[in-house]
Amino acid sequence: MKTLTVDLADRSYPIFIGQSLIDQTELFAPYIKGKQVMIVTNTTVAPLYLEQVKSALTDYAVDEVILPDGEEYKNLDTLNLIFDALLEKRHNRTTTLIALGGGVIGDMTGFAASCYQRGVDFIQVPTTLLSQVDSSVGGKTAVNHRMGKNMIGAFYQPKCVIADISVLNTLPQRELSAGIAEVVKYGLICNYEFYQWLEKNMEALASYDSAVLAMAVELSCLDKAAVVAEDEREGGIRAILNFGHTFGHAIETNQGYGVWLHGEAVAAGMVMAADMSWRLGNITQTEVHGLQSLLKRAQLPCIPPSEMTNQNFIDLMQIDKKVLDGKLRLVLLSSIGEAVVTSDFSTDTLHQTLAAGERLGL
Amino acid sequence: MKTLTVDLADRSYPIFIGQSLIDQTELFAPYIKGKQVMIVTNTTVAPLYLEQVKSALTDYAVDEVILPDGEEYKNLDTLNLIFDALLEKRHNRTTTLIALGGGVIGDMTGFAASCYQRGVDFIQVPTTLLSQVDSSVGGKTAVNHRMGKNMIGAFYQPKCVIADISVLNTLPQRELSAGIAEVVKYGLICNYEFYQWLEKNMEALASYDSAVLAMAVELSCLDKAAVVAEDEREGGIRAILNFGHTFGHAIETNQGYGVWLHGEAVAAGMVMAADMSWRLGNITQTEVHGLQSLLKRAQLPCIPPSEMTNQNFIDLMQIDKKVLDGKLRLVLLSSIGEAVVTSDFSTDTLHQTLAAGERLGL
Repeated sequence: MKTLTVDLADRSYPIFIGQSLIDQTELFAPYIKGKQVMIVTNTTVAPLYLEQVKSALTDYAVDEVILPDGEEYKNLDTLNLIFDALLEKRHNRTTTLIALGGGVIGDMTGFAASCYQRGVDFIQVPTTLLSQVDSSVGGKTAVNHRMGKNMIGAFYQPKCVIADISVLNTLPQRELSAGIAEVVKYGLICNYEFYQWLEKNMEALASYDSAVLAMAVELSCLDKAAVVAEDEREGGIRAILNFGHTFGHAIETNQGYGVWLHGEAVAAGMVMAADMSWRLGNITQTEVHGLQSLLKRAQLPCIPPSEMTNQNFIDLMQIDKKVLDGKLRLVLLSSIGEAVVTSDFSTDTLHQTLAAGERLGL
Repeated sequence: MKTLTVDLADRSYPIFIGQSLIDQTELFAPYIKGKQVMIVTNTTVAPLYLEQVKSALTDYAVDEVILPDGEEYKNLDTLNLIFDALLEKRHNRTTTLIALGGGVIGDMTGFAASCYQRGVDFIQVPTTLLSQVDSSVGGKTAVNHRMGKNMIGAFYQPKCVIADISVLNTLPQRELSAGIAEVVKYGLICNYEFYQWLEKNMEALASYDSAVLAMAVELSCLDKAAVVAEDEREGGIRAILNFGHTFGHAIETNQGYGVWLHGEAVAAGMVMAADMSWRLGNITQTEVHGLQSLLKRAQLPCIPPSEMTNQNFIDLMQIDKKVLDGKLRLVLLSSIGEAVVTSDFSTDTLHQTLAAGERLGL
């Protein structure tokens, strides 16, 4: 087992990465201060792993709430089911919530923990590759609004993250691939060596090789933790973690939450951002095609939905959280391995990228 | 105009107290960092004061959302109307929310600001006595859940508070009285001199004397700010501000939100807490009766609803946020002017106080 630390002063916390961790009492116990625990999970994950987690928590009064599975349920109504369960079971301020599931469960549980009785503790047990490398690090929690993704939320850090590589064995291929999109992102925005390593190891990664998965999770978490430690509340550099996300969120919102997986939308979004970076002279067209090829090897989409118009994108991108005083800012590549946040591009260039959707296909 | 400061390191903020403040541009401008402003108010306050506030904000793109008036609307559904308005009008992270109204508007606007795009700025313009002396100081924001009051919220500080005494002229008598309950609370829990001053000035206060009102607001805010500065997130001493509230919240929840005003429920709750303090030998029965008399002079109720049973209270008090590992803690008086948080009482004593509801009547 490896232990990384996300360094955030009095909100610092460890990430445990390894095999067969979710039933280990000694990983949970130091981070549970009261007697009550509420496990929040979903209908897919509960039959697979709920009992294992409960077997680690026999010293506590454990309750559970099992939510429907899917991004389309990541909203205030579902959030309220968590509050209902907490209040029905009379959980008090010393309770600890445990998020057992993917990014949707993590985001909702974290947000519920941030506002139940104005803040209780929570622990992340991410069960998808995407949540292990992304949403469990950095304390961004949120629910969606019908007019925009992750529009309602909080910055709220977990007490610890238990990233068990073994549980990825039961992850469907499509979800594994979605997670790989975020892994590729770290290489692109801040770690050229990692990107080269991914080019060598993509087939092993996409076919559940556990050693390669463990390495990918560790390197991704290290990269993300370093960025978050520098800028917890996204005043500046942290925004580079949104590479591909402004285009990607537009795709997700346009298609309906849950139709495209988040990682799939990010994959297509990263190609669009790379295309625009090429148009601005930052990277070569060969590198854009190289990225597309890498994503295809991970069985990821690398063009946006053909029916989405330029106007669809423009409308949805205007409500992105990075918009400042009406001006759209995008995360673009200055090279493979380095990203910048910029509003220094012409509307023409943006429109060319949006119109290039078809042509981006290899 | 008086300026007090709530001292919370990088979250410190000023409270401006005086006459005719709500149309003063120079009070707002230093605390608005972007170009967009969203005024959140309700159907009662909007016709009276919305235009005056807007006249101070001609340099900004000002939008407004007008909510239904009443504690019974302080829930996640109404909160969502604020998010709808913000997204429809494309407000971004640099927006500033302005809470123009009483405690319900302040609590909801503050909570909306804490979670819209994971946190935007807000300014409090409290228009009731209760919100000027209580909810606008200290950063507690929340909405209610059908199973408990203020169960979902955040600690989130405003950029400034503009407490305009003139607007209290339009406050109905019942609401003014409800505010006086919280004013009396400060005297009881931490300021014996203030309590004596209130015994001298209650008639002037309850009849809208503006100088007396200004003094009551200032002294209340000073007392509250001192407690909050010491313990922002209610790890300890801050809990004394909940004097009368554990009983009071039970009354509010039992009667249905909005039937008893918050301050009315707190008034009856304070008498119950004082009764229990007498039973424990901390204060005299004469002092309990003196408190009842003072509250009556402010036209406040000072006994709980006659139909509420001991069991009604016990059930509702068990979900109070001060319950720790199943043990009820109450704020009681050690003397008039000093409070303690304690679980050091017998169930019998609590039951005697609950059963004494009728007999508490003068």
